[in-house]
Amino acid sequence: MKTRIVELRRGILEKNDKLAAGLRNRFSTAGLLVLNLVSSPGSGKTAFLEWTLRKLVREDARAAALVGDLETDNDARRLASSGAPVRQINTHGECHLEAEWVSKHLEGWELGALDYLFIENVGNLVCPSNYDLGEQIRVVLLSVSEGEDKPLKYPTMFNSADAVVITKMDLAGPCEFDREAAVKNINEIRPGIRIFETSAKTGTGMEEWLGYLAEQRVGERAHEPARQ
Amino acid sequence: MKTRIVELRRGILEKNDKLAAGLRNRFSTAGLLVLNLVSSPGSGKTAFLEWTLRKLVREDARAAALVGDLETDNDARRLASSGAPVRQINTHGECHLEAEWVSKHLEGWELGALDYLFIENVGNLVCPSNYDLGEQIRVVLLSVSEGEDKPLKYPTMFNSADAVVITKMDLAGPCEFDREAAVKNINEIRPGIRIFETSAKTGTGMEEWLGYLAEQRVGERAHEPARQ
Repeated sequence: MKTRIVELRRGILEKNDKLAAGLRNRFSTAGLLVLNLVSSPGSGKTAFLEWTLRKLVREDARAAALVGDLETDNDARRLASSGAPVRQINTHGECHLEAEWVSKHLEGWELGALDYLFIENVGNLVCPSNYDLGEQIRVVLLSVSEGEDKPLKYPTMFNSADAVVITKMDLAGPCEFDREAAVKNINEIRPGIRIFETSAKTGTGMEEWLGYLAEQRVGERAHEPARQ
Repeated sequence: MKTRIVELRRGILEKNDKLAAGLRNRFSTAGLLVLNLVSSPGSGKTAFLEWTLRKLVREDARAAALVGDLETDNDARRLASSGAPVRQINTHGECHLEAEWVSKHLEGWELGALDYLFIENVGNLVCPSNYDLGEQIRVVLLSVSEGEDKPLKYPTMFNSADAVVITKMDLAGPCEFDREAAVKNINEIRPGIRIFETSAKTGTGMEEWLGYLAEQRVGERAHEPARQ
């Protein structure tokens, strides 16, 4: 049975990879920067994204979001209060998002009219690492309350990421967060990766994060084919 | 492909369920109480279990633990400092424990010489809910820093649990933990489930938890067949 499982899983991932490559092509053609946010449940993805969307909307950037959860549309409603277009993807038991569901939930949105698309994945530090969603940037979030050892214990997720956002820095004191150990462990798995130390509550590190988004967006637009 | 996946998954779960039923039978025959601890990464399973093992060992209870992680044996080493026998199960990328691996890692242990076996699952609030490990009691841990909405967003895990342990109560203030909302949400998914509010740092709620363990153990021994 194990061989059949491995084969079938490979087939699923290959199909997903193909769809994701197609999506990435569409995103690049549209000059759209797409970020896939992954983390444990409760790391503060939604609060971080809510802050980001509010700020981008206020600055007249055109940002949208897809948000994945097993159940409930609480997060989509919360994020929509930013004024950005937001859609919920309910996986009904599935532990990750797939490129196919992203594609379906983009129907009716004009990608060329957007600058940023954020995909908030299901809270899970294991399974989403295997599923490319066509994003240009994968961001893994790690809250100060989770423990500095998480990069070593969940290496695939950290190894496949392009940036790490440490969240809830306002709780670093009460949580006795060991910043040096966390940075050391992240670098052990993914040397030189960009790390942001943030708090969506106090705004710490958020301007640096916005600067990064703008830089990456410029980089993405450089690949954009000239419009007719 | 979807039909084949559903079928294959059903096959895997059926095989796991059979093995788990066999394990549960062995555990009951040995008069052993087995608990499966599940939670998000970073909820404090290891700190909670370390406290529990130390206390049980000090009281001459015979407790042992299996601990699941994708990589590293940090947790097994940490737990072994309690004096209890501990074995690490590395899943190398798999997002949950299965009955087969539990069975393999019990080899050489005399189950009749133990009172309690704790299985610390991989940190994941989705996938482990589908895999019975033969435990008599499934305990889901939820830290005060994760947000009170988690039971609603991960209903399968909370619905399949026998007890909920709220961890890191010492951080309830800084995290602005809304106890009433958490209890309400837990009860919405699993009405009447036993809830412990604990801190492995301050010891809050831990005596009540130990009392529960002793009660459950007595209940389990009542089923134990008379020894020859």
